[in-house]
Order: sequence, then C-alpha cells, then structure tokens
Amino acid sequence: MSNAAAVLFANDAFYAAFVGRDADAMDELWARIVPVSCLHPGWPPLHGREAVVQSWRDILANPDAPAIRCDSARAYLLGEAAHVICAERLPEGDLAATNVFVREAGLWKMVHHHSSPAPMPPEAARTKPPTLQ
Amino acid sequence: MSNAAAVLFANDAFYAAFVGRDADAMDELWARIVPVSCLHPGWPPLHGREAVVQSWRDILANPDAPAIRCDSARAYLLGEAAHVICAERLPEGDLAATNVFVREAGLWKMVHHHSSPAPMPPEAARTKPPTLQ
Repeated sequence: MSNAAAVLFANDAFYAAFVGRDADAMDELWARIVPVSCLHPGWPPLHGREAVVQSWRDILANPDAPAIRCDSARAYLLGEAAHVICAERLPEGDLAATNVFVREAGLWKMVHHHSSPAPMPPEAARTKPPTLQ
Repeated sequence: MSNAAAVLFANDAFYAAFVGRDADAMDELWARIVPVSCLHPGWPPLHGREAVVQSWRDILANPDAPAIRCDSARAYLLGEAAHVICAERLPEGDLAATNVFVREAGLWKMVHHHSSPAPMPPEAARTKPPTLQ
C-alpha cells in the first residue's frame, strides 16, 4: 500500500469510528506518543490526548450525534506526517476538514482534526496530489 | 533557534504578511516544492500553489480586508513537518487556525492554512507542548 493510500485508509478509519459511534476505535486511532489537538466546529481548541479523546467519547455517546459521510479526500504527504483535506457531509450542511496524521510505530495515527462549515463542491473522485515521495 | 521557535517564527511571518497586506511576502512563505492547500473561512478548499497564492493576492488587495491579530499560538512538531494552532482575532469575532508547515530547503514553509470561527479563550502565553524532538 502506498503512503497516500495508507493515510487515506487511516482517514477512512476515523470516519468509520465516527459513523459507527465506536469510541474505543476512535481512541485507538489517535496518536499515543505525539501530542494531539482538535478543533471541533464552534468549540475552542482542545490540546492533549485526554481532552481530545474525552470530547470524542462525549460526542459519540450523544444520541443526537449527526450522521456524517466523508468524501473528496485528498492526502498531502509530508514525510513522516501527512494531512488530508476532505468534505464532511451532514444533514445540516457540508463541512470541510483538515486531518493531520503522523506515522507512529509504523502506523498512521491522527494528531489533529479541524472541521468547519464550508461550501463544498460535489463529491470528487479520490485524488492524490503530486508529492516528493 | 529551536524547531518550535522556528515554526512559530514562520507562523508570525504569515500573520505579518497578512496584516501588512504584503502579497509578495505571502507568496514567498508558501512552499514551492511540496503541494499546498488552503481553507479560507466559508470558502471551498483551494488545492495547488497557483490557486492558493492568487486567493491571498485577492484578499490582500481588498481594501475591506480585515485587521487581524494572532495570539495563543502552539507549535506541534512532526519531524520535517509541523502544525500550529492559534487564535485569529478580528473585529468581527475570533477565529481558530490550523497552519501546517514543512521544512523545505532548510526553511519552514507553509503548506496549508485552515481558519474558521471559534469561541477562543483569552490570549494565552505562547506555549510548546512536549514533543519527541
């Protein structure tokens, strides 16, 4: 699997945990060694694994948590780090997300999530921009 | 200068170009080799250097471009990449930004900017979370 495919796979795992309201899977996919952060829409920034994972446990435990679908994901490789830009489709409207990953013990783990409302174009095919790798 | 200090210096340079409406400085601080992207508040994602730099030239040429001030910046180091979370203070309200940088030819260059409204806490002292470096 190429690095880009592996990063997009990790991004898919994040949305699978979100959609499946699987708090343990969500916990598992965040980095454990590298410090993490999160910018939920309309929230102040969260810094540190405890605050970030707890926020996801609260969101996923909420019966009103929205249905969400990710598409149009693009992976940008930055050596042992990467970020993904993607659309998040919700019943209330579209969001755009920046998801940052780092390779930790050989696996791509999430270190940052930033999501906010954005006028997203229709779903695009999965693409990978040119990289140096 | 530590890596964290160098990344925060690059982040400061971004806001200095923004405040100073210096389109050439803004152009210069974006990476030239590594692909770049940008998520302006309320815009669809921009992919590629030409689209991103042109968007900044348009924004900085607009006489109604807002005054902006950055504070509470935190640098997260990811090897040859890094991201910064910071507050953007505008007359209309606060935003939170994720700014991603990569070391390109020895200099920290911006590869992604994502900014969106957020209820930011009051200005915090500049801090650096623990890293592996």
